Amino acid sequence: MAVVTFTTDFGTSDGYAGAMKGVVLSMAPDAILVDISHHIRAGDVQAGAITLAQAAPYFPPGTIHVAVVDPGVGGARAEVVVAAGGSFFVGPDNGLLSLAAAAPRRAWLIENPAYRREPVSPTFHGRDVFALTAGRLAFGWAADGAGRALPDIAGLPLVPTARLGEGGEGEVVHVDTFGNLFTSFGGTVTPGSWDLQIGEESYGLASGRTFTDVASGSLVLYAGSGGQVEIAVRDGSAAERTGAQRGTRLRLRRRS
Amino acid sequence: MAVVTFTTDFGTSDGYAGAMKGVVLSMAPDAILVDISHHIRAGDVQAGAITLAQAAPYFPPGTIHVAVVDPGVGGARAEVVVAAGGSFFVGPDNGLLSLAAAAPRRAWLIENPAYRREPVSPTFHGRDVFALTAGRLAFGWAADGAGRALPDIAGLPLVPTARLGEGGEGEVVHVDTFGNLFTSFGGTVTPGSWDLQIGEESYGLASGRTFTDVASGSLVLYAGSGGQVEIAVRDGSAAERTGAQRGTRLRLRRRS
Amino acid sequence: MAVVTFTTDFGTSDGYAGAMKGVVLSMAPDAILVDISHHIRAGDVQAGAITLAQAAPYFPPGTIHVAVVDPGVGGARAEVVVAAGGSFFVGPDNGLLSLAAAAPRRAWLIENPAYRREPVSPTFHGRDVFALTAGRLAFGWAADGAGRALPDIAGLPLVPTARLGEGGEGEVVHVDTFGNLFTSFGGTVTPGSWDLQIGEESYGLASGRTFTDVASGSLVLYAGSGGQVEIAVRDGSAAERTGAQRGTRLRLRRRS
Repeated sequence: MAVVTFTTDFGTSDGYAGAMKGVVLSMAPDAILVDISHHIRAGDVQAGAITLAQAAPYFPPGTIHVAVVDPGVGGARAEVVVAAGGSFFVGPDNGLLSLAAAAPRRAWLIENPAYRREPVSPTFHGRDVFALTAGRLAFGWAADGAGRALPDIAGLPLVPTARLGEGGEGEVVHVDTFGNLFTSFGGTVTPGSWDLQIGEESYGLASGRTFTDVASGSLVLYAGSGGQVEIAVRDGSAAERTGAQRGTRLRLRRRS
Repeated sequence: MAVVTFTTDFGTSDGYAGAMKGVVLSMAPDAILVDISHHIRAGDVQAGAITLAQAAPYFPPGTIHVAVVDPGVGGARAEVVVAAGGSFFVGPDNGLLSLAAAAPRRAWLIENPAYRREPVSPTFHGRDVFALTAGRLAFGWAADGAGRALPDIAGLPLVPTARLGEGGEGEVVHVDTFGNLFTSFGGTVTPGSWDLQIGEESYGLASGRTFTDVASGSLVLYAGSGGQVEIAVRDGSAAERTGAQRGTRLRLRRRS
Repeated sequence: MAVVTFTTDFGTSDGYAGAMKGVVLSMAPDAILVDISHHIRAGDVQAGAITLAQAAPYFPPGTIHVAVVDPGVGGARAEVVVAAGGSFFVGPDNGLLSLAAAAPRRAWLIENPAYRREPVSPTFHGRDVFALTAGRLAFGWAADGAGRALPDIAGLPLVPTARLGEGGEGEVVHVDTFGNLFTSFGGTVTPGSWDLQIGEESYGLASGRTFTDVASGSLVLYAGSGGQVEIAVRDGSAAERTGAQRGTRLRLRRRS
């Protein structure tokens, strides 16, 4: 029984996500359907890519991840299936799959009419291309039967992750639902007191292993669960506190 | 293994949807549970009907669709199970099922105590009537064992769909999560330039197959994935742009 | 096949809930995953406890309920598994499990490294401790293998439920997604006219079995589906009408 996950910006007040699930079950009645998210911000490919990459590594080998954040649906970007790390990724070739389906990877176009639901709606490839391909894979069809091989898939213009060390200049790469700031720094955080600068504003903050290492309402710097250095406010929102959003530049420096 | 889907206005911060799922699994441990939506606007029967009709046709034959948008719960409207198109629909007889369970259809009251969880809470038929009936059907019980046959179920006072042709007067019948406007027009859209009038305001817009056929921020008129003619703003919201909501009258006319 | 349910405050725009599901499926490929809620208000342990208690009793025996509303993650509160009423509950020992896993119950610490995903992230026990333990239980491992037995788990400082009778002073213990007020009163509601006092404001309201027993827009007092006495506005929100929120004191009195 194959696992099929869903990551979309379709929300859950319309029937779009449901239609995709129906298509998968119609192709592969034994598929196990798992929602990762249907609440990616509309058209926010980068947020979708980060969310998928947060979850996908924890699924069993052979899982088929369908992702649809696709403002260019029906346009020039290709439809693809990617094999990486023992799992499969199905979606638009707009960078959405590039973080979760990390290299080394193999990719194919979805061209074979048997992997598409004809006539394909030009505005709903989620249902007519991606869900149908996922259903075929879940039923045991081969990924390389979908179409011609591609040399690679599209990436995202992400700030590269740098080790934090004693500090440096970086960027907010993601803000999660709690208002925690994911930074472009990775690795461990040297214990102690740190200075954070965002725009004209400076903040002192302590490093910690977790939120409860600081007082309620205080900022804390820590190594996040996904490998990135994060900034949070215990029992609060670091995004609200600092006004930072994705793309906001920041500077961290460890105090002597 | 039967598939059971859920479409409700219960939201996902309370335990109502969860309780329904538990009841289904208690009756039919092998049932495959699929969320279509728990975020129908509270009490909005028409939006629930449209959402269910967007998704239900894509599920395999034999699927059992439970839908609960039920402001009249415990009151005069009946509780029903409907067989249509090879699938089953369970919910209140208030129009909610009427679009997805399109005629020809057969309907029965849910009267048999074995299809109800006694004592039935007068405010939570979702759990005590509809989920339990769905669980019985998923376990293989017959729909016509639920109670007396009904001549038909209640409909909705929807504006009938008209072919767009060269244009005409119609209405917004649904606004989706992206702010796309579903109109009361169906069929194909003749390529070219169109005029849209809403209230005092006039808009010029191009027809297209998909969003990317127009520039970012522009209005586009297209044949939607559900068979209706839709109006969208590429990378934006047509509802915000035009101020239209469900029931707003509109006029479309193709330019010479 | 074991059922595993999820109740968290993780929201559904990040990959946190998805990562937990992946971990469970990696440990127990046949597990049936069911979302109860990922939209508990951030850090609101009491709301999480009430939501879980609304849904859990309706699941089949042997169900494994994972719950994570855990503002103290990585801090002093313990990680526990609880057996109660034939089902299992996995989460932080901060009161979250105490309503659904009602006494008599048995509890164990989650200490055994085989029940944890090492190295455990100090900020994401949902993935690295609770989901992994749930996966182990779903695969058939014993709850008492997780660690040392505990005398009991932490409770919540809830106002005790009192029988309503002819009235009395109580409190709003929960506000649901419809704005219905769950009170600290339980049992049946004597039919008739009632007076409700909240702060300086007085309201007359009728008792009813269900919403449709009063006119649209009217307040109604009724025995709720979970055993508590509730106050609603038909086709509206009692929370908005009265300004009440959780913890608001109220007084009910039956008119002669």
